[in-house]
Amino acid sequence: VSTSRLEAFSDGVFAIAATLLVLELHVPVTGSGPLWPQIVAQWPSYACYVVSFLTIGIIWVNHHALFALIARVDRPMLFLNLLLLMIIALLPFPTALLGQWVLDVQQPPVAAALLGCAFLLMGLAFGGLWLYAVVHHDLAGPGLDRASARASIPRFTAGNLVYLIGIGVAFFSPLISLLLYGLVAIYYVFPSLPRSRVSAARHE
Amino acid sequence: VSTSRLEAFSDGVFAIAATLLVLELHVPVTGSGPLWPQIVAQWPSYACYVVSFLTIGIIWVNHHALFALIARVDRPMLFLNLLLLMIIALLPFPTALLGQWVLDVQQPPVAAALLGCAFLLMGLAFGGLWLYAVVHHDLAGPGLDRASARASIPRFTAGNLVYLIGIGVAFFSPLISLLLYGLVAIYYVFPSLPRSRVSAARHE
Amino acid sequence: VSTSRLEAFSDGVFAIAATLLVLELHVPVTGSGPLWPQIVAQWPSYACYVVSFLTIGIIWVNHHALFALIARVDRPMLFLNLLLLMIIALLPFPTALLGQWVLDVQQPPVAAALLGCAFLLMGLAFGGLWLYAVVHHDLAGPGLDRASARASIPRFTAGNLVYLIGIGVAFFSPLISLLLYGLVAIYYVFPSLPRSRVSAARHE
Amino acid sequence: VSTSRLEAFSDGVFAIAATLLVLELHVPVTGSGPLWPQIVAQWPSYACYVVSFLTIGIIWVNHHALFALIARVDRPMLFLNLLLLMIIALLPFPTALLGQWVLDVQQPPVAAALLGCAFLLMGLAFGGLWLYAVVHHDLAGPGLDRASARASIPRFTAGNLVYLIGIGVAFFSPLISLLLYGLVAIYYVFPSLPRSRVSAARHE
Repeated sequence: VSTSRLEAFSDGVFAIAATLLVLELHVPVTGSGPLWPQIVAQWPSYACYVVSFLTIGIIWVNHHALFALIARVDRPMLFLNLLLLMIIALLPFPTALLGQWVLDVQQPPVAAALLGCAFLLMGLAFGGLWLYAVVHHDLAGPGLDRASARASIPRFTAGNLVYLIGIGVAFFSPLISLLLYGLVAIYYVFPSLPRSRVSAARHE
Repeated sequence: VSTSRLEAFSDGVFAIAATLLVLELHVPVTGSGPLWPQIVAQWPSYACYVVSFLTIGIIWVNHHALFALIARVDRPMLFLNLLLLMIIALLPFPTALLGQWVLDVQQPPVAAALLGCAFLLMGLAFGGLWLYAVVHHDLAGPGLDRASARASIPRFTAGNLVYLIGIGVAFFSPLISLLLYGLVAIYYVFPSLPRSRVSAARHE
Repeated sequence: VSTSRLEAFSDGVFAIAATLLVLELHVPVTGSGPLWPQIVAQWPSYACYVVSFLTIGIIWVNHHALFALIARVDRPMLFLNLLLLMIIALLPFPTALLGQWVLDVQQPPVAAALLGCAFLLMGLAFGGLWLYAVVHHDLAGPGLDRASARASIPRFTAGNLVYLIGIGVAFFSPLISLLLYGLVAIYYVFPSLPRSRVSAARHE
Repeated sequence: VSTSRLEAFSDGVFAIAATLLVLELHVPVTGSGPLWPQIVAQWPSYACYVVSFLTIGIIWVNHHALFALIARVDRPMLFLNLLLLMIIALLPFPTALLGQWVLDVQQPPVAAALLGCAFLLMGLAFGGLWLYAVVHHDLAGPGLDRASARASIPRFTAGNLVYLIGIGVAFFSPLISLLLYGLVAIYYVFPSLPRSRVSAARHE
């Protein structure tokens, strides 16, 4: 399997998972009273939609940055990527869960911690994929600079650490957890993978 | 990230958002009385389906026209595009909302104004993407003629203006709002971006 | 817009519409009695799934055959293609409708006639796309043999005729209508477009 | 139709079917009691999600391995592939069925046997596609080594045999059936198709 095929399939899963998030927003039934308050009351679902959409979008960008550095894919890597996609495709479920339950004061931690766990698993699967590619020299393309590749690992770990903190914070305030998850997405807008020297050279 | 990768991912989100619109049409349950009147009573949902499908289709066409003029994509542009996609992927929600609530005489403006706001945000995100590309000379491909690019900006703004009017009209007649949104889609069938000189030359 | 971009977007809509069909099959809730009879009772929904999936699959094949003969796409053609996709994306709705209502003896024609109308509109939009391409000489690629292109028109019309008959038959037996729609799909497995002389030559 | 077009469309159906699996996980409604026990009680649905996601992922990998060996596609092959996709796109339905019903002690076999039948049909359709390609010499690309192609057939059959056993076991323990289906997915992680000599040479 070439990396381009793998990327096309992964892109499909990323795009579908991100777009399915909207199905968890509920249209109030007519005759159930004034519309506007019902729309407003759903605000946690909108916040969760934004955080999960951005997270999937950012991981998509970084997924491409990763595969731009890789020349070919072997079976274990294919399987690691499948695990990552399995977690990405699952995200609409904990997202909807948190949107529904974040304001339920009696049991705050469960939903917020679950979304954090899903994001953490996603981060770990992505990190595993990256580590595997760095360790296996024969998979790397000419664009991969090993030293800067190793140097990028702390930046990865940072995101996972914040997810871990978010899971802990969920026991006190699920809304702050959600805010932390959103901050990770924004943090990863800035490039965390070394730029491919080949593609960098191509553009200069 | 190359523009072709970005376009493939964006295409996925466009195609899925447009196709998910159908899930908001409800199949009447058997035993609920004659079928035909129930099908007919759903006509506002069909009208909303057509307007949103065409709008997504047209913005898809213009999205391609935009990226045909751009040689490469930087991080802020990637993020602007992600914002645009986040709004596109949200469209099935306000579309379903208007389909359900447009005939509810007691609270006309909310649903129609919300769909207008979503379309307006979409138009602004698209305009922002276009402005960013025009201003940053180093991103432009050889096909971009700066003068005609600037000249195209009023045509963009026109659509957003009609959306703004539609939001206002929603307070009097949500159906006229829907009609206005449909007219914008038809208006944008005609090209609003300057044709790439490169691709134009290629075909002559 | 190049034909390859248009095909990628169209492929997305075809694939999603076909895959969304499964969402109309209902999982019986536990505790609602024995499972097997409830599964069996849904057989019209399975039949509708098969007919619509095959129809979308076949129209996808013919859509590619069509665009293999075309060198470039203009705005009216883009719009005609968007109309075709709008109908394709709608198909899960009348499909689910027929699956639910085909056995309701009191109002047979409505659901079966509606699915027939959707298929007919799809056939007409596809025929319109094809006619437009044949008439506009400048859009055709080198593979298009005008004489055999014209000769293929009756084969197209045949399918639409059977859909028309199916709509009429719906007033007597919606199941026979469904059977007729299935036969059209099987009929179109055989190529109805002239093979591109270029691609034919390439393989010989 | 070129193999690359066919693969793109098939990829779409694979990715969408895999991602739609998540829609069968239900978000408990607020006010329905403690959240955590309700999440835990859904564990069979998560297990089914994992098994079906991995199965679709693995068959996707093998689908590509197959088409990497094939130079062109004829109409019967297109139709066989469409049958395979029709079964893949159906998988979210028996998956959800088993997730809901696997713990219902009064009627164990039905749901587990149905998922097994769906997987078996998928395996048979894939095997049929492969057999057809091996038999028709003119479709094969230069990468296909006929002897090792024939030698791969027992490895294929093995998976189908385990599905058959799983269907039988369903009458005693649907959970062991599910476990067997999961084992097939893991078994197929290891390559069951001969590696293309061309692509092998390309990488050495």
